[in-house]
Amino acid sequence: MTYCVGLRLNRGLVFMSDTRTNAGLDDIATYRKTFTWSVPGERVITVLTAGNLATSQQMIGLLNERAKRPDERDPGILHTETMFQVAQLVSSTLREVIAQHESSGQSASAFGATVIVGGQIAGMEPRLFMCYPEGNFIESSSDTQFLQIGETKYGRPIILRSYDADMSFATAIKLLLVSLDSTVKSNLSVGLPVDLSIYETDSLVRGPEMRIERDDPYYQMISSSWGDALRTAFDGLPAPEGFDAD
Amino acid sequence: MTYCVGLRLNRGLVFMSDTRTNAGLDDIATYRKTFTWSVPGERVITVLTAGNLATSQQMIGLLNERAKRPDERDPGILHTETMFQVAQLVSSTLREVIAQHESSGQSASAFGATVIVGGQIAGMEPRLFMCYPEGNFIESSSDTQFLQIGETKYGRPIILRSYDADMSFATAIKLLLVSLDSTVKSNLSVGLPVDLSIYETDSLVRGPEMRIERDDPYYQMISSSWGDALRTAFDGLPAPEGFDAD
Repeated sequence: MTYCVGLRLNRGLVFMSDTRTNAGLDDIATYRKTFTWSVPGERVITVLTAGNLATSQQMIGLLNERAKRPDERDPGILHTETMFQVAQLVSSTLREVIAQHESSGQSASAFGATVIVGGQIAGMEPRLFMCYPEGNFIESSSDTQFLQIGETKYGRPIILRSYDADMSFATAIKLLLVSLDSTVKSNLSVGLPVDLSIYETDSLVRGPEMRIERDDPYYQMISSSWGDALRTAFDGLPAPEGFDAD
Repeated sequence: MTYCVGLRLNRGLVFMSDTRTNAGLDDIATYRKTFTWSVPGERVITVLTAGNLATSQQMIGLLNERAKRPDERDPGILHTETMFQVAQLVSSTLREVIAQHESSGQSASAFGATVIVGGQIAGMEPRLFMCYPEGNFIESSSDTQFLQIGETKYGRPIILRSYDADMSFATAIKLLLVSLDSTVKSNLSVGLPVDLSIYETDSLVRGPEMRIERDDPYYQMISSSWGDALRTAFDGLPAPEGFDAD
């Protein structure tokens, strides 16, 4: 499994992906799931992948190969005109990879993958999309400004309650690490290290990119302090009346 | 979907189930998913059900009918000798219902259901089990003293972090309502009212049973205060250094 989140903030985009892949509990590996393409001053595009590793690697490989051959009929990811076209390109490439396996009579779901793609092209707003294995996609809206893929449920409540489009990058990273920590504690198939990427609106250059390891002091602090803070918050709520108290 | 939890505490057992059933988003209804059998002074047994409503209703119906006919070859739920035998009886009845549909060539998974069963029989310890649609079951251990069925993920992190076998019934109810609230906020298929049942160890009589409605003042307070408390706890964590602060 996997846990990836893309957040759309007023000041930019923040992306997080874990790095754990597994083909069975005894076949666990670390793979990068965040991929960024940029033409400084013109575009920055980040893709996060969840699902079948062969599918997502082949999709990234095709996007890369076609970006280097601008003589093809369709523009590559470095030459599309809008972020909407980027989402179309990523979705159709994802679908193309999955359809290859379907056409050989195998079940499509075994090769499924889901993708978050976000970024900005000069002269337009930053945009954030989620692409489905069926080849269609949705865009985050002003009502739903974050997208999750993979093992999304454990870490969702804290994002639902704490997300604020005005938050700083620092707070966004804190929020994503808390959300990740709740997921890691509940599901073995999501694991550190985690990749974080920040894109600042209108910068049109790659922002800070970090890999946070399991023994990172800030992550360790978040992980233990959040447990304590949750317990304190929980203890602070009044208990129902009519029962024995502690 | 459904959300049910059984907690094993040092002072007894606490059960919670929501009441929402759905056959599609436009076909939502309220059904009780908590069922209790008791012989005062001798045994108290509580069952929580998740999954296909026809399956769980038929299973409960069979358990009820057979409890009233003690002349059958196998002892009913009111006459089994141990809680282990209760878990065997519930599991085999669940499997029997599902197998009826399988034998007619239909997919078993469509008729699947999962059950939590717990209680106490005089002279023995209280025990808590989870029964699977395959007909097998597991028991909660001293390491894992709570069991969840249905839409379990959203509400799991807070239980993982706050569960304590020594907690009072009042705190346990608070914990379950916080866990439920995180689930309800994230998934439409889980909904109030919620049924809560308490069993005090060695009482051998049914304990307090409550139905909490959506407009219950205590639940409303928990729901809003927990959101505030989470945000306060989150704000209290230090942000990572090296970024713009709020």
